[in-house]
Amino acid sequence: MKLITSRDNPIFRHLVKLKGSARQRRTAGQTLLDGAHLVSDYNLVLGPAESLVVSEAGSAIAEIKQLLAEHARRGGGDVAMLSDALFREISPVTTPSGVMALIPIPPPETIPFHQSKSGFCVLLEAMQDPGNVGSILRSAAAAGASKIYMSDGCADAWAPKTLRAAMGAHFLLRIYERSDLVEVARTFKGRVVASTLKAKNSLYQLRLTGPTAFVFGSEGTGLSEAMLQASTEQVTIPMPGGMESLNAAAAAAVCFFEKVRQIKTEACNS
Amino acid sequence: MKLITSRDNPIFRHLVKLKGSARQRRTAGQTLLDGAHLVSDYNLVLGPAESLVVSEAGSAIAEIKQLLAEHARRGGGDVAMLSDALFREISPVTTPSGVMALIPIPPPETIPFHQSKSGFCVLLEAMQDPGNVGSILRSAAAAGASKIYMSDGCADAWAPKTLRAAMGAHFLLRIYERSDLVEVARTFKGRVVASTLKAKNSLYQLRLTGPTAFVFGSEGTGLSEAMLQASTEQVTIPMPGGMESLNAAAAAAVCFFEKVRQIKTEACNS
Repeated sequence: MKLITSRDNPIFRHLVKLKGSARQRRTAGQTLLDGAHLVSDYNLVLGPAESLVVSEAGSAIAEIKQLLAEHARRGGGDVAMLSDALFREISPVTTPSGVMALIPIPPPETIPFHQSKSGFCVLLEAMQDPGNVGSILRSAAAAGASKIYMSDGCADAWAPKTLRAAMGAHFLLRIYERSDLVEVARTFKGRVVASTLKAKNSLYQLRLTGPTAFVFGSEGTGLSEAMLQASTEQVTIPMPGGMESLNAAAAAAVCFFEKVRQIKTEACNS
Repeated sequence: MKLITSRDNPIFRHLVKLKGSARQRRTAGQTLLDGAHLVSDYNLVLGPAESLVVSEAGSAIAEIKQLLAEHARRGGGDVAMLSDALFREISPVTTPSGVMALIPIPPPETIPFHQSKSGFCVLLEAMQDPGNVGSILRSAAAAGASKIYMSDGCADAWAPKTLRAAMGAHFLLRIYERSDLVEVARTFKGRVVASTLKAKNSLYQLRLTGPTAFVFGSEGTGLSEAMLQASTEQVTIPMPGGMESLNAAAAAAVCFFEKVRQIKTEACNS
């Protein structure tokens, strides 16, 4: 395992590009997973990574040593070691984890899911904050969603920040970026529930036990008229406390887990 | 209104300190509100700010002009104008809003709230991410909570990042920092509900229509044994989808709005 210390090293330069630019990630069809947790999650679902990148300091950490051994045992690709200074430059966090995986962005269909999840989708229109998108992916996966459709103008689903906030949800969901959401809504077999501050109906009045696609709009401007038209219901979360709105990721979590609650309650009553 | 262009200006130096350090904010008993929205929210509840700070570019924006006129009309304090370059240095965002207010951190008791809210509190133990704390304040205020108790080791409630994420919730809530949470839990007259991954009971099995204090722990390690002991119930949010956990702010929103739902449903049924 050769130590890379030069900024001119082609591997390092490739990693810097992948970290910084959604376009580079798309062109290369690759992204970076930061930290042992994400790398392990990927491993579990999709096998060993294309290559691993460790920092000098990281290579001495027991958890990372184990990851490297597992990677070798399962026939994973190259391992590159970067000086701590170089590793810090490609790390999305201020306290670098010490390990990253270089992976091909998996086509949505390579993510397996249980049939029971197939009636639960999420549509995101122009949601721009990678932290919000990541948190929504995490909540959606936890609540049992299977598919995420994202419009143009959303934060990059495979950006390091999004990946970090989603904590492995990417490997439990089929994520379709640059989707035509109106088309997805029109052809969805079930309720298409738009969450909007303008709606008269409360989320809690709606039966969510069947197939449901939840639709959320941009943090600033909400949903487009076309998306509102394409949805079968519009609901709002009652807010008795006098705030104007919720954070987008908080609102999404409330909607997803209202579905979970209704399904649990129905199961108990039947 | 004098234009400040020098880094050595004492006002500018004071603002830089307040932006950067929780200790400085505590010592001065002051913080900075960024953006016309937050400044207006403060105004509505607590009157005109101690002083306003605008950027040169900001002073030409209609919304900010209106804010300045209102500030003068209501007898607000000094207004300082910073060059755009200096303003950018004290702004917590990459695209500066153009206006900030310098305010005394309000003592919790100066925040008015309706009696109906008094049975809804939130306790945060060592929650470190200012974005999470801010989002929780926002959701708590929206759901009708009145009081927030935060332990040592939490993110600073009055940090610019927390204020930004909370979107004005600070002026609807009484926030008690550096609280003895075990003592608060012991003396609370109602259910003290700890949210923990280890609990056997589901959130949805618990009646939340009465006085409730929700307790959430640190993102990494959860709640301390002492807090678990001090709570009257421990609940978990059922996650059928196979994730290990939710984001702290998402989990809190789910808990708060389950309380809202139960109260709404009870009102409809009675």
